[in-house]
Amino acid sequence: MKTQRLERIIECLSQQGLEQMVICDPCSVFYLTGKMIKPGERMLALYINSDSAKNRIFINDLFTVNEDLGIEKVRFDDNADAPTLLAGFIDHSKPLGIDKKLEARFLLRLMECNAATKYVNSSECVDYVRSQKDAEEACLMRAASKINDKAMGEIIKRIGDGSVEESTAAQMLDIYKSFGAEGYSFEPLVGFGESAAIGHYEGGSRVIKEGDCVLIDVGCTKDNYCSDMTRTFFYKKVSDEHRRIYEIVKRAQQAAIEAVKPGVRYCDVDKVARDIITEAGYGEYFTHRLGHSIGIECHEYGDVSSANENVLKPGMVFSIEPGIYLEGDVGVRIEDLVMVTENGVEVLNSFTKELTIID
Amino acid sequence: MKTQRLERIIECLSQQGLEQMVICDPCSVFYLTGKMIKPGERMLALYINSDSAKNRIFINDLFTVNEDLGIEKVRFDDNADAPTLLAGFIDHSKPLGIDKKLEARFLLRLMECNAATKYVNSSECVDYVRSQKDAEEACLMRAASKINDKAMGEIIKRIGDGSVEESTAAQMLDIYKSFGAEGYSFEPLVGFGESAAIGHYEGGSRVIKEGDCVLIDVGCTKDNYCSDMTRTFFYKKVSDEHRRIYEIVKRAQQAAIEAVKPGVRYCDVDKVARDIITEAGYGEYFTHRLGHSIGIECHEYGDVSSANENVLKPGMVFSIEPGIYLEGDVGVRIEDLVMVTENGVEVLNSFTKELTIID
Repeated sequence: MKTQRLERIIECLSQQGLEQMVICDPCSVFYLTGKMIKPGERMLALYINSDSAKNRIFINDLFTVNEDLGIEKVRFDDNADAPTLLAGFIDHSKPLGIDKKLEARFLLRLMECNAATKYVNSSECVDYVRSQKDAEEACLMRAASKINDKAMGEIIKRIGDGSVEESTAAQMLDIYKSFGAEGYSFEPLVGFGESAAIGHYEGGSRVIKEGDCVLIDVGCTKDNYCSDMTRTFFYKKVSDEHRRIYEIVKRAQQAAIEAVKPGVRYCDVDKVARDIITEAGYGEYFTHRLGHSIGIECHEYGDVSSANENVLKPGMVFSIEPGIYLEGDVGVRIEDLVMVTENGVEVLNSFTKELTIID
Repeated sequence: MKTQRLERIIECLSQQGLEQMVICDPCSVFYLTGKMIKPGERMLALYINSDSAKNRIFINDLFTVNEDLGIEKVRFDDNADAPTLLAGFIDHSKPLGIDKKLEARFLLRLMECNAATKYVNSSECVDYVRSQKDAEEACLMRAASKINDKAMGEIIKRIGDGSVEESTAAQMLDIYKSFGAEGYSFEPLVGFGESAAIGHYEGGSRVIKEGDCVLIDVGCTKDNYCSDMTRTFFYKKVSDEHRRIYEIVKRAQQAAIEAVKPGVRYCDVDKVARDIITEAGYGEYFTHRLGHSIGIECHEYGDVSSANENVLKPGMVFSIEPGIYLEGDVGVRIEDLVMVTENGVEVLNSFTKELTIID
């Protein structure tokens, strides 16, 4: 068990009047135990209690876990009634924190067993602690983004006359694996020309044309931690308007990065970028939040949006990805991951943001 | 809405004393509406009621659904409290069927809203109806398996000296796409020689050797329906013992297929194959259930195992995949998908099961 992480969660739960919780999100279980188990339809449950002697992890026999996880394992097979087994370890006289992702088939059974006096969605505690990466995680986040920088350098070498969006995207997996990544953190988004203006466009059969923008939004996982970066290039030439748009997005992105430090709010960072784009006359074409938190999952707790008034703390990692999208014409987005440091910001990506023309 | 499917579910619910249910599994929503929406962290909910005028589907604005789904849509954005919105449409004076996959963050909110008198996991109704494929689905299942047959023919052409398990597996995606499939129904399992004896082995860096068995367990999705097939080949030569094992597995698989018809139980089919392997002296090396149901998901409700005493009905589709695994030596598995017909069985795969030596 990662004891310090666990203690931070127990502390947060106690502030909510909770002494016990069932965690089932495989990423949170991994965060606390170092072991990633994808249980599919089986129950995976990490029961934590302010009395750590009561902590247990419930794992189906189907999953081989020979290593010592620093927590007592309760093993069971497919014939067992797993939630009833779990209920036997819960303090029935107290309320129980519940993982937001616990499925009804397990939660309803726990309730039938009268496992607790009350059931409270307490995932925010886990998510908030997870949002502040520790030193070990900072290292892993840097490593994943470093691979992403290298992969971006490799994929643009492969773009030329005849390139098609979807076959360009399809090459990313091998590139990532060749650099030691395990796989995607999300399906690559590759858009040429007007396709790049479509939100979450995964790439179609459009063939590249001179003057097209080339939007590449990609990420990999390395040791279970995610990267995520976007660059927008231009193919062979760039119009004056597209260049102007590119420079506005770049300026907005840079200013937002420079605004990041402990004590600033997520919404303040969003505003810095949004104001620049709005003042340049393109506010209505920046159609999404500025960014999202990231870590073991590609989208974690903590939007970088006008609605999120939470305050930045050291160790928080998120994307800064402003964009301008003109329907039927062009889409420009520039995205880096950043980490809040003790007194400022560390940018996890180093791939150039100078306007680049692919020849 | 697929009205007949819906009516069968409403009928099943009423037998359990339920007049209303919330369905959230994206595959079940697709089954009933024809629309596949992957909601990620957002709420997707199909509310069904025995009074069909009350049916509603709740979809976040993030997902573009312009088509008429034959059911009134309730749209909401990220600022909405989606479960509370849903609760407003539920009959509070009656019990509510709950999808087994509904997550705690939504279920606990529904409960806080006093949405119903009682909450009952009623997924078995949906799953049971889904297990009996209708004519439209039968067509789609055949099409997905037809692609799988062709893909198996293609991948074995690419195996030769120097072939490595994981790079062989990695070629499947392109092969599937070239035949019109959307992607995998599960990650391909490719094992050479003793690797094939390891359960759910996804392929490592082993290079093929003369005399190796070559176990290939693969499946694709086409129009959201799954295929799944296994063949075991031998590389360049086959030992007498391996040939004997192969013929036992083949005989067990064929006998189990011939046992399939309405009225027979899942466990009876398992027993036919298991008895043959046991009588041949290899019972302890057949370490898993005979098969699993399949459809929109690769593993659906309805194990083909000794524990499942449910009776086969026309339209049920499942795998028949006996195997013999000798640790450190060889693994042989042969798998087809079969569909129960009005008075017998239809095998969905046609790829040869004659012992084949790859040269």
